[in-house]
Amino acid sequence: MKTNRRNFIRIAGLSGAGLAGANLIQAYGSESDKSTDSNLKQFPGKHEQHFNMCGYAAPGLETVRIGFIGLGNRGPGAVERMSHIEGVEIKALCDLRPARIDVAKERIENSSHEPKNFSGTEEAWKKLCDMEEIDLVYICTPWDMHAAMAVYAMNQGKHVCVEVPAAVTVEECWELVETSERTRKHCMMLENCCYGFFELLTLNMARQGFFGDIIHGEGAYIHDLREHNFSNKYYQDMWRLKANQRKGNLYPTHGLGPIAQIMDINRGDRMDYMVSVSSDDFMMHQMAEELASTDEFYAPYVGKTFNGNMNTSTIRTIRGRTMMIQHDVTSPRPYSRIHLVSGTKGVASKYPDPARISTGHEWVSEEEFKAIEEKYRPKIVARVGELAKEVGGHGGMDFIMDWRTIDCLRNGLALDQDVYDAALWSSIVPLSEWSVANRSNSIDVPDFTRGSWKNNQQVDISLEKGGTTRVLMQEHSH
Amino acid sequence: MKTNRRNFIRIAGLSGAGLAGANLIQAYGSESDKSTDSNLKQFPGKHEQHFNMCGYAAPGLETVRIGFIGLGNRGPGAVERMSHIEGVEIKALCDLRPARIDVAKERIENSSHEPKNFSGTEEAWKKLCDMEEIDLVYICTPWDMHAAMAVYAMNQGKHVCVEVPAAVTVEECWELVETSERTRKHCMMLENCCYGFFELLTLNMARQGFFGDIIHGEGAYIHDLREHNFSNKYYQDMWRLKANQRKGNLYPTHGLGPIAQIMDINRGDRMDYMVSVSSDDFMMHQMAEELASTDEFYAPYVGKTFNGNMNTSTIRTIRGRTMMIQHDVTSPRPYSRIHLVSGTKGVASKYPDPARISTGHEWVSEEEFKAIEEKYRPKIVARVGELAKEVGGHGGMDFIMDWRTIDCLRNGLALDQDVYDAALWSSIVPLSEWSVANRSNSIDVPDFTRGSWKNNQQVDISLEKGGTTRVLMQEHSH
Repeated sequence: MKTNRRNFIRIAGLSGAGLAGANLIQAYGSESDKSTDSNLKQFPGKHEQHFNMCGYAAPGLETVRIGFIGLGNRGPGAVERMSHIEGVEIKALCDLRPARIDVAKERIENSSHEPKNFSGTEEAWKKLCDMEEIDLVYICTPWDMHAAMAVYAMNQGKHVCVEVPAAVTVEECWELVETSERTRKHCMMLENCCYGFFELLTLNMARQGFFGDIIHGEGAYIHDLREHNFSNKYYQDMWRLKANQRKGNLYPTHGLGPIAQIMDINRGDRMDYMVSVSSDDFMMHQMAEELASTDEFYAPYVGKTFNGNMNTSTIRTIRGRTMMIQHDVTSPRPYSRIHLVSGTKGVASKYPDPARISTGHEWVSEEEFKAIEEKYRPKIVARVGELAKEVGGHGGMDFIMDWRTIDCLRNGLALDQDVYDAALWSSIVPLSEWSVANRSNSIDVPDFTRGSWKNNQQVDISLEKGGTTRVLMQEHSH
Repeated sequence: MKTNRRNFIRIAGLSGAGLAGANLIQAYGSESDKSTDSNLKQFPGKHEQHFNMCGYAAPGLETVRIGFIGLGNRGPGAVERMSHIEGVEIKALCDLRPARIDVAKERIENSSHEPKNFSGTEEAWKKLCDMEEIDLVYICTPWDMHAAMAVYAMNQGKHVCVEVPAAVTVEECWELVETSERTRKHCMMLENCCYGFFELLTLNMARQGFFGDIIHGEGAYIHDLREHNFSNKYYQDMWRLKANQRKGNLYPTHGLGPIAQIMDINRGDRMDYMVSVSSDDFMMHQMAEELASTDEFYAPYVGKTFNGNMNTSTIRTIRGRTMMIQHDVTSPRPYSRIHLVSGTKGVASKYPDPARISTGHEWVSEEEFKAIEEKYRPKIVARVGELAKEVGGHGGMDFIMDWRTIDCLRNGLALDQDVYDAALWSSIVPLSEWSVANRSNSIDVPDFTRGSWKNNQQVDISLEKGGTTRVLMQEHSH
């Protein structure tokens, strides 16, 4: 990938508070070499929005023909989930390693889908994107390949669903935006946590005014992945361990996405500036040394510096609201995405278990909680929530996401997550990296909507349009 | 108070990341008028430590003779608690309003204490400090009076216990440090949350290595005080409502103190820099308008700007560890100080209830939790924990604090909180204010120990020295 070889990325323009200028910061895994360039712009020469993709509804497709790229970790599950959705045709599967295609095929072996296979070369995915009989490219590759693949697919006239984060540099974020606007193809980031049951509940509660004005939100990705990242089983060529040599919030979107939707970011409010503070790494470099002492395989990771164990990033919006987003994938801690929503009338939080709701000094009782859950159950959950739990995928949220996406494409509706969300939520990675490298000073967040956030409409969770796509449970054994 | 009339405060020296220079920022309640002055220093001309008060043990006092200043809110309870401690003589009570002295006296009416009264003038407290037969001045006045009173009392040869925050400007913080070092009098901030049962438990667990290296801590003061702050019952002349017109983390020490002790701040590590992000105020100004519409009393608060509802401040230490501290006294949220301790081997958190402990992917069971509590129970809790619960004061922690302080003074031991802790923890107020006013850019935290943090010893919680002071439960009716 060309993206891989870029050593430097351009970063958002800086302003305010007497900062001397903007800095160049580095992408993936290279050591610190910060140059200063006060002339950097957010995206040279292109500051007008070509076409507003927020709320854009592409022409409906009776059948959605999908090609999947990347079948290592998330891919095979997505293939199976899609096979449970009416109007989906799984047309192509692609992975560098042929064995991974077999794994995905096993998940749909009792179905009628007969996908073509693309494998064996680093450019094989392009042939999948070139296929005429594909409407949607579904990308589950390592992080640093996402943007280039999404851009290529859109340029071939395909809609795109791409795993998180959609991009790893600010320049890539802008490329996604420019390409989606020019091609009028959807570029949806697969932020599945936006479809978590409690996340959807709180989104609906926010819409119905339960929280009053939302003032503050919190999200996180606190997930001890040390074993995973150091294992040679999960991530091809140890890509995720290598990716964790950047310093910042490297995986912000699971915590941020649901909060951003609830706060109508890009749709009535926008992020203004952010700060990011990282601890040092107290564990990963030692783990590399320990592993290497008995296994040569780990020798390349000795002496490397890894991301700090805890990153805390705080964002302020133009409307004066705040978001606190944390990242910790290396501490011995129970899993948490926090998901806290705090407003003038109430508060809710998902983690630590159990989820909680309050409108004052005490959390509501279990009974009241159930009554609120009942009252504010979103229509999408009523429609496919139980079936989603049966299909599975992170407790059902993966399936709700896939079903909703297909249902929108089939009914010609705007998707819940557009390219501006993908770009903005992903941009927290390089922006946090800049702040961490610069004594946590604040950095302006680019406005990827280029002003249209003022008039963009909220995500439509009414299900008044659509909801027609059936879930196919008997199609094949699960 | 002269302190009240200062319009500008000097702020810590700035460095790093191309900030153009330091700014002057304003104290209490005045509108924004930020000047720039690149020549500001942390404390002009005085950068040497005169004498290290960390670990300093003043000569033991068989009897500790106390004078109390400020009997509005916290004072009367402190008077009563002290009456339950062996070797205490309550020698003097002072409040501007004579009626408050009566309230305090009622709390000790069956005791043998016969305090002198000082009241009626704004300078009455000085006469209390001037009394020869007093060893310790215990200050519970409004925030902006703390430092001036503490400095005056130390200059009269008295030890000082002072409510939180001990100071409200960086200059005041330095005055406390300079005065304590020069007079060799203790200046202890009454950070009672350091004596919370779970806080003490986690401090002891940290000492015994349960958490491994501590990487990250969190604290907060999330406490819906809207009714209190707008009531004319609690705070004389509405001082606390007025104080909440500053913008930042105005009350950081309850969350920060216990975390700072656990992370050995000023004693092996020190704060390097911090950032602070505030939301706007979405509630207080409206509440002022609503109240004023039916009650003239509130007219002066209409059109004022109040502190943002949520403030999130993040601090990084020289050793590369982080602290996240929040402040929200206006949202409809259940009380929380968070108190999260995260290390290489484990994690614990106090809020939201119930407290939790983990060493991996799951929280320990109730049974294991109890076993850990048993194993790591600090000696001070074993010694006076049950009695403290009987005496009361925030569930017992206030009494543990007072008992420990008196026991140290009587046995000639260093106090658990010294003037550097008081200054540092309090300095977060003006430092956060600067960051919030400057687009959340980072600000260096002054080293009040002036280098001695490298060799200062940990707070001694072994109770190997001291612990001799008896608790007097039958002294008088409770």
